[in-house]
Amino acid sequence: MTEAAVAVLVTLDSKDEEARFVCDALFGAGVRPWLVDLSLRPHTIGGAAVTGRRMAEAAGSSWEAIAEMDRARAAETMIEGGKKILLEKFRSGGLSGAIGVGGANGSSMACSLMRALPPLFPKAMVSPVAATAAVQWYVAESDIAMFPSIGDISMNRITRAVMENAARSVAAMARAYSPEKGVAGRAPPLVGVSSFGGTAACVERVSEALIARGFEVILFHASGPGGRALESLASLGELAGVVDLTTHELADLAVDGVYSAGEGRLRAAGEAGLPQVVVPGALDHANFWVGSVPERFRERRFFQYNAQNLLMRTSAGEFEALGRMVAQRLNAAKGPFAVLIPMRGYSEHTKRMAHDLSGAEAGPWAQLEADREFAASLRKHLHKGRIEEMDLHINDPEFADACARVFFELMDAEA
Amino acid sequence: MTEAAVAVLVTLDSKDEEARFVCDALFGAGVRPWLVDLSLRPHTIGGAAVTGRRMAEAAGSSWEAIAEMDRARAAETMIEGGKKILLEKFRSGGLSGAIGVGGANGSSMACSLMRALPPLFPKAMVSPVAATAAVQWYVAESDIAMFPSIGDISMNRITRAVMENAARSVAAMARAYSPEKGVAGRAPPLVGVSSFGGTAACVERVSEALIARGFEVILFHASGPGGRALESLASLGELAGVVDLTTHELADLAVDGVYSAGEGRLRAAGEAGLPQVVVPGALDHANFWVGSVPERFRERRFFQYNAQNLLMRTSAGEFEALGRMVAQRLNAAKGPFAVLIPMRGYSEHTKRMAHDLSGAEAGPWAQLEADREFAASLRKHLHKGRIEEMDLHINDPEFADACARVFFELMDAEA
Repeated sequence: MTEAAVAVLVTLDSKDEEARFVCDALFGAGVRPWLVDLSLRPHTIGGAAVTGRRMAEAAGSSWEAIAEMDRARAAETMIEGGKKILLEKFRSGGLSGAIGVGGANGSSMACSLMRALPPLFPKAMVSPVAATAAVQWYVAESDIAMFPSIGDISMNRITRAVMENAARSVAAMARAYSPEKGVAGRAPPLVGVSSFGGTAACVERVSEALIARGFEVILFHASGPGGRALESLASLGELAGVVDLTTHELADLAVDGVYSAGEGRLRAAGEAGLPQVVVPGALDHANFWVGSVPERFRERRFFQYNAQNLLMRTSAGEFEALGRMVAQRLNAAKGPFAVLIPMRGYSEHTKRMAHDLSGAEAGPWAQLEADREFAASLRKHLHKGRIEEMDLHINDPEFADACARVFFELMDAEA
Repeated sequence: MTEAAVAVLVTLDSKDEEARFVCDALFGAGVRPWLVDLSLRPHTIGGAAVTGRRMAEAAGSSWEAIAEMDRARAAETMIEGGKKILLEKFRSGGLSGAIGVGGANGSSMACSLMRALPPLFPKAMVSPVAATAAVQWYVAESDIAMFPSIGDISMNRITRAVMENAARSVAAMARAYSPEKGVAGRAPPLVGVSSFGGTAACVERVSEALIARGFEVILFHASGPGGRALESLASLGELAGVVDLTTHELADLAVDGVYSAGEGRLRAAGEAGLPQVVVPGALDHANFWVGSVPERFRERRFFQYNAQNLLMRTSAGEFEALGRMVAQRLNAAKGPFAVLIPMRGYSEHTKRMAHDLSGAEAGPWAQLEADREFAASLRKHLHKGRIEEMDLHINDPEFADACARVFFELMDAEA
């Protein structure tokens, strides 16, 4: 039996049998359960290590006040209090894992709490909505392992076996867990690199250069969760530096495309004072699902990448906005940075033809004039740091070499 | 060390280091790895227990022919061969778990293979797309546990730790796995019940009656994955009967709404010869995401259920189609069935007012005239079985009691 406990996150008023079952399964697998009650309404079922009352009070509210709130507001308050209690227990070394069990609302609450715990800390959620699009919000940039409950959460042989499997999994992870696992500062230093199909040649060559120089590399795929994970790890102190070759998700942020990583993109590394090289990689397009292009963009140029993904060519006006957006973020950076701009094209797609929404050819994807608006806008709005415009394509080996060289210079200057 | 092995599903040509790492982690956790190579192109990396050549040949193709195919066709062929090999190994008792590691394409292939294995068989996927809407297709109605890799799959301290966590999880599940776990036929018999918010009172009362009668109950939430899981478990022989109180997903199938469970809905129980009670529960609406109602439905009546879900009132014409759809499926049933129709309303929403897309009130949700088209169409097209039209609302206790009574009659007649 390990000393540190595994948190069991469940609404005791509707799922007390399931809660006891999971606690027993954890105990049987050699870890101590620590039952956290997520109920939003008063009840008389015992057994919680952390009661609803305690969570309400940790949020500066009371169990009686919670009972009066509508459910959304009550859930929000309980999550606020629960986060404090979980993080305190974690920081004191008393927690080695967490498992949630619940329906749609229970999953939403339990996942909110687990997202507050650091990456690599063992987390699992047993849920009937594990295989739905809602994981974008439930899991987001975190590393919660989602276990589909097959049926709704209730005591039958199928769901019981799933809960048992998930409990065994968390127990196995928890027994091996040590909080030092992911901590930065140990050699080799870890460098984050943003990646994408259209910038792959650059990403690969830069990664090789980083590894040859003694760095470890973690790639973040620029389709939303990747950028969020990059920001999250940077702010948690897991990264030594960032080579942001594929700032692509900002184009989706600007036009509300499907690959946005949210408002937080390109902020955390600067905030954490990390050295960063920034490149407008794949900023030449945003993403929509086929058949779902908003009305206002129907006259634009596109390239259909596969059965699901439609790429929309970034316009000169949007590049002006993106230059401003990048400048604002980098102006706030506390660490050294350089922006490298490949003037012959921001992605591999420059080698293709564009088409309109009907599929008719609409001229070359490459529009170097429009691309230049990015550099012009950035120069206008950026108050510090370096900008290098290079007469190269992003996937030219010389451009990758320049990115690596500048990154090493920034790192050496820091050391 | 257990006898049965854990399959490791990975493209060896791009991820040989990761494959070896996961195999070592499994070995360290007390299970034998069994490496299945998903590469689509010839290579010279050794170590696979199941080579690409063997998978190609199991599909009646050859390694040389695969190399000539485009990647989509090659993947399809390898999946076909891989399924045969995995199922053969599983049926011989040689397999106790499976773990996949891969990017978007690798996840698609590995999950396709794992979906062929039965529910409760331990399955895990380490993937950078674990927290995206794509899990709808990757996991679907299966119970694959998705582990987000945080970064792209490569050898760095973060992704390595995630792979280690997933390997430990699968090993813990695999060591405890016995193929008899979910098998039907053991007392108490398991009954599947389809459920939804709008039919909750009926579902709850029927469940209580079933449990009181000595059955075990598994609920399937009628939002797509639930209906698919119901069909899957019925066809796998896990269920003794079905009380299909919430055939709701057929309304989404009919109008291409977001909660469709696909063409397979309401087929497997009949095909398996199971006794079933069928009710048009929540057939009075289909679901769209707020802001995404197709052009052709913009003049219809709606009810906004929460921030995401917009319910569209089913029309008389759609009920005619649904009656035909249900009749066609039940005409093919090999087991006994009865359709019970609550003529005073198919869901709790009959107690609300409808609104148009602008939010303006648009009369009562209840439209008993339109609802009656379902019964009329069903009578016209159904060639066998029983139809009972009852002067009750679906959530009246008497209606639930009738559903339970008829189900027990069908079960008793079978016994």
